[in-house]
Amino acid sequence: MLVAACISGCGVSVTQANNGVANEGNLKQTSTVKRQSINVLDRGITANDRSDSTYKIIEIIEEAKKKGVTKIIFPKGRYDFYPTRAQEHYLFISNNDEGLKRVGFPIEGLDQLEIDGQGSQFIFHGFMNPFLVRDAKGITFKNFSIDFERPFHQEAEILAVDDGSMDLAFGEEFPYEITPAGILQFVGIREIPPGYPIFERLERRKDVEKKYGYQSLLEFDKEKRETAYMVYDLWIGNAVKAEHLPGERRVRIFHPKLSGTVGNIMTFAPSRRDYVGFTLTGSEDVIFDNITIHHAGGMGILGENCHNVTVKNSAVTPSKSRYISTTADATHFVNCSGEINLVNNLFENQKDDATNIHGIYAMVDTILDDKTIDVRVQHPHQYGFEFIDKGDLLELVQGPSMITYGANKVAEVERLSKEITRVKFVDTLDKRFQVGDSVAEVRDYPDVLIKGNIIRRNRARGMLLNCRGKTLVEDNYFHSPGAAILFEGDANFWFEQGGVSDAVIRNNVFDNSVFGVWGNSVLDVAAGISDEYQDKARYNKNILVEGNTFNVYDKGLLLDLFSVDGLIFRNNKIVKTQAYPERQIEKEFFNIEHSDNINIEDNNEFIGFE
Amino acid sequence: MLVAACISGCGVSVTQANNGVANEGNLKQTSTVKRQSINVLDRGITANDRSDSTYKIIEIIEEAKKKGVTKIIFPKGRYDFYPTRAQEHYLFISNNDEGLKRVGFPIEGLDQLEIDGQGSQFIFHGFMNPFLVRDAKGITFKNFSIDFERPFHQEAEILAVDDGSMDLAFGEEFPYEITPAGILQFVGIREIPPGYPIFERLERRKDVEKKYGYQSLLEFDKEKRETAYMVYDLWIGNAVKAEHLPGERRVRIFHPKLSGTVGNIMTFAPSRRDYVGFTLTGSEDVIFDNITIHHAGGMGILGENCHNVTVKNSAVTPSKSRYISTTADATHFVNCSGEINLVNNLFENQKDDATNIHGIYAMVDTILDDKTIDVRVQHPHQYGFEFIDKGDLLELVQGPSMITYGANKVAEVERLSKEITRVKFVDTLDKRFQVGDSVAEVRDYPDVLIKGNIIRRNRARGMLLNCRGKTLVEDNYFHSPGAAILFEGDANFWFEQGGVSDAVIRNNVFDNSVFGVWGNSVLDVAAGISDEYQDKARYNKNILVEGNTFNVYDKGLLLDLFSVDGLIFRNNKIVKTQAYPERQIEKEFFNIEHSDNINIEDNNEFIGFE
Repeated sequence: MLVAACISGCGVSVTQANNGVANEGNLKQTSTVKRQSINVLDRGITANDRSDSTYKIIEIIEEAKKKGVTKIIFPKGRYDFYPTRAQEHYLFISNNDEGLKRVGFPIEGLDQLEIDGQGSQFIFHGFMNPFLVRDAKGITFKNFSIDFERPFHQEAEILAVDDGSMDLAFGEEFPYEITPAGILQFVGIREIPPGYPIFERLERRKDVEKKYGYQSLLEFDKEKRETAYMVYDLWIGNAVKAEHLPGERRVRIFHPKLSGTVGNIMTFAPSRRDYVGFTLTGSEDVIFDNITIHHAGGMGILGENCHNVTVKNSAVTPSKSRYISTTADATHFVNCSGEINLVNNLFENQKDDATNIHGIYAMVDTILDDKTIDVRVQHPHQYGFEFIDKGDLLELVQGPSMITYGANKVAEVERLSKEITRVKFVDTLDKRFQVGDSVAEVRDYPDVLIKGNIIRRNRARGMLLNCRGKTLVEDNYFHSPGAAILFEGDANFWFEQGGVSDAVIRNNVFDNSVFGVWGNSVLDVAAGISDEYQDKARYNKNILVEGNTFNVYDKGLLLDLFSVDGLIFRNNKIVKTQAYPERQIEKEFFNIEHSDNINIEDNNEFIGFE
Repeated sequence: MLVAACISGCGVSVTQANNGVANEGNLKQTSTVKRQSINVLDRGITANDRSDSTYKIIEIIEEAKKKGVTKIIFPKGRYDFYPTRAQEHYLFISNNDEGLKRVGFPIEGLDQLEIDGQGSQFIFHGFMNPFLVRDAKGITFKNFSIDFERPFHQEAEILAVDDGSMDLAFGEEFPYEITPAGILQFVGIREIPPGYPIFERLERRKDVEKKYGYQSLLEFDKEKRETAYMVYDLWIGNAVKAEHLPGERRVRIFHPKLSGTVGNIMTFAPSRRDYVGFTLTGSEDVIFDNITIHHAGGMGILGENCHNVTVKNSAVTPSKSRYISTTADATHFVNCSGEINLVNNLFENQKDDATNIHGIYAMVDTILDDKTIDVRVQHPHQYGFEFIDKGDLLELVQGPSMITYGANKVAEVERLSKEITRVKFVDTLDKRFQVGDSVAEVRDYPDVLIKGNIIRRNRARGMLLNCRGKTLVEDNYFHSPGAAILFEGDANFWFEQGGVSDAVIRNNVFDNSVFGVWGNSVLDVAAGISDEYQDKARYNKNILVEGNTFNVYDKGLLLDLFSVDGLIFRNNKIVKTQAYPERQIEKEFFNIEHSDNINIEDNNEFIGFE
């Protein structure tokens, strides 16, 4: 960011007393940007006392907006944020759950703001969303970590496993109850800021406190701190029978699907993704630099309809001895444009992919006349997502083949509900157009740079890369239980628009990926295309895989290609390890289906195989 | 209503072809109001085919608003409304549950509109809110019924009761599932309008369909169709263990609290009150005339911040063979003014009181300076309720005594969140003011007329009347399991503002009320006042009870008075019946505590007692 660059790089004191607003405009005579900063301690916020800073930070952000202040500084310390006085917004957050949220840092309509934590910890309490960046520009977050006092997931050690039951020992961080009906549920901890006067009165309303819902279990290897070998999600629903066992915090749960290894850690996934760490929507030039996300009840960073987002020198990693960081993807980008840069980050223990970069398809629900249709977003995590504006060009996509057969410009848009939008086009509809086809926004698809990251110990895949701009994946370390990289897209279940056109995967280390069930090849190129169109459609194009090291524990698939036109695999090293038990292999190293111009060159080196 | 009166009274044809808009302005030459009506069949709505009329009625209402149309006519028939294209609003509905609602009839900002159903049935499907009247004036509903295809509650016949278990037979209207974890849950029926093209596609998303939550059981007498003698709510929570039994739709449920009589009907209350029949907010002159509410997933009619509401010749009554009509109060009015008239209605089988008319207290949460406080609404069903505007006068109420010790005018208001509002007063705060006290709006408290109604077979009380205007309750028939009439108010749990100043209860029949657990006297006057203030405070005043007939099945309390100043009980007839088994009576007929000027006259007649 323009604004931030000098302040941290010039070695000058970041605040100067001036009614608490430091004018930094004179620090660099050549700059035309007048910089002012606020030290939060000058605005009544106090560090390290667990008091509630929420209302004050909202006031400070408002002041920054009004006065053109471009920097907010938190001197190093612990700062606490509670939902009571957080700002309310009903948010539809793509790929997470909608709802009336409490936002700690509502950054709306600002142009140029840096929040510098100087190494601080931001601790959030209860049911709240840390950051919202909406219709903003030039926003930089640096030098702080976020965490939740009471996480949204649960963790327990497996004490015993029997047919249809499992004994668990929960950590103190994960309080639970067994209802009079004999059902396990998870509850909050008392999170009232110190000195809050009506503590006792609030006690009355304990009956209506929200519960921490769950929906599935996933086992982690206690020592390796990664998902246990070849385990899968156990979908147990949001209510299981349970009974107390002798000893503290010991519970027996009952469900026919239960399986696991004694001594490992069983984690409970929350039933919803409500509490995203950073929600970025309709914003431009957002930078994360030296930010640590210890936890979020949903994704860590979700960017939608944004232009230029950079995450660098940052981490998604659990705090304390937890096995889970964010309860869904570390980062995720939807219908973005410009550049997406993920550089020198650590993404570990998140409950889903390190990133997923894609667009959204909406299905044609009703054709009203020769120019007018109702389209419907299909996945509930896409409800309310706004991606169709007057003047936009929409591609028209045949449902089963995913072949784009045309485009049409939007003349009028009316949103009927969170899932249905009425669209009137400028031109008469293509005659092939029918109910069940899809539309997606044609835009300045982002260029993606993924460089120098470490991805490990998470659930599912490493990264889902579905961008039509240039995609460069370089110098990363992947150790993911599913595919390290997945290219895909479909218009029949997830309704995610993808299809790379120029992707380079270079000089990465793929270290014993695919030790779990989320994919069966290290690099997986897929597409949701029906049988009858498999010869005709080619969804992903022009992929170069070179100079990578694949550490593999058997001869399982390195590449699984479907509907690809153009892939070169060259100068890679494939090294045999003993990391996991070998699988039954049907096909060694490469599987290629319904693809053209695939070139597995002879210069790849296989080391250590008999 | 001005507009409606003539049209139905003049015997003229209500529609005249004029591009579908009938100009009725010439029907009455002396009128200065130009009346126009729309027949919905002229706008593409079709009757009796179960097609979705929702989008079209929203368009018609919009047209009415734009063109000043004052009447919308539905020729007699069945009309269906589905949530898919209903209008979305995030609604806080007092005494019901907040949420993002789908509204079938959004009547916002209109001035003068009558909707005449001419005897039609309006059938609603799925999760939607039939009517919203907001910031409107002169709205009349007449001659139609509303119902839901799939009700929000559940009913089952009790087949067997054992220690900790109960066998139930569910009607076809109440589909359920038992999860793989062995938990009972209730599900929807497929409610897709005929001809909707993407039926099969929608099937995919069955996994995310909403469930019909539950929280408690209540037993109904199968023959009498009322709550069984002295039963109480069984709070079983939203998840109970269950197993299928041989035979169709037979289930055994497990919970330590289960009790009931074989052959009776067990009803499951929904866990939330989300789907109010008619939500009236900030509106004026609203009339219901010959409206039948068969069902709502919440209250039937909820009026808040309204001026003048009349419900006449109407009914809240179950359809088909159901035991439950609305799942909460039939009607309910909060912070209203002007007149509230309930005349010649039938209120039966609703899952709570026939009406409750009251104000709202908000508790002082924080005192910021000598003019500024944060107040907090305490009950989640009051969250988001807006009752403090700039210029309002607020009474200051001592928490434990409920004594009003002053008032202060509002200079500024800032809403921080749905429960917390920051208020700056014009004058310096009274020195007695402290955290834990409450404030309530001082307003033109409504005059209430309750006349000629039948109230029976519901859960809980007949009516809760907590109005400081004139209250006249005349010529009604009450047969309620709890108190027939309750006057109360408190600032420590429900936070409902009350305190009558002039109430007359005359010529009613109280027919064997108090056969359940919701109160122990036919007329109950209470107040939430702490022990130390009971001698000082008098919360309800000037009540006249005369000329009523009390049919009673034992010598239990007719009057239970607490904190009353001024009550006359005269010329009433008390008649002994055999309707229910007699109770153990501690005190016969009258109980008077901490009250002054209570006059039980000698002219009351006791008939049939030994």
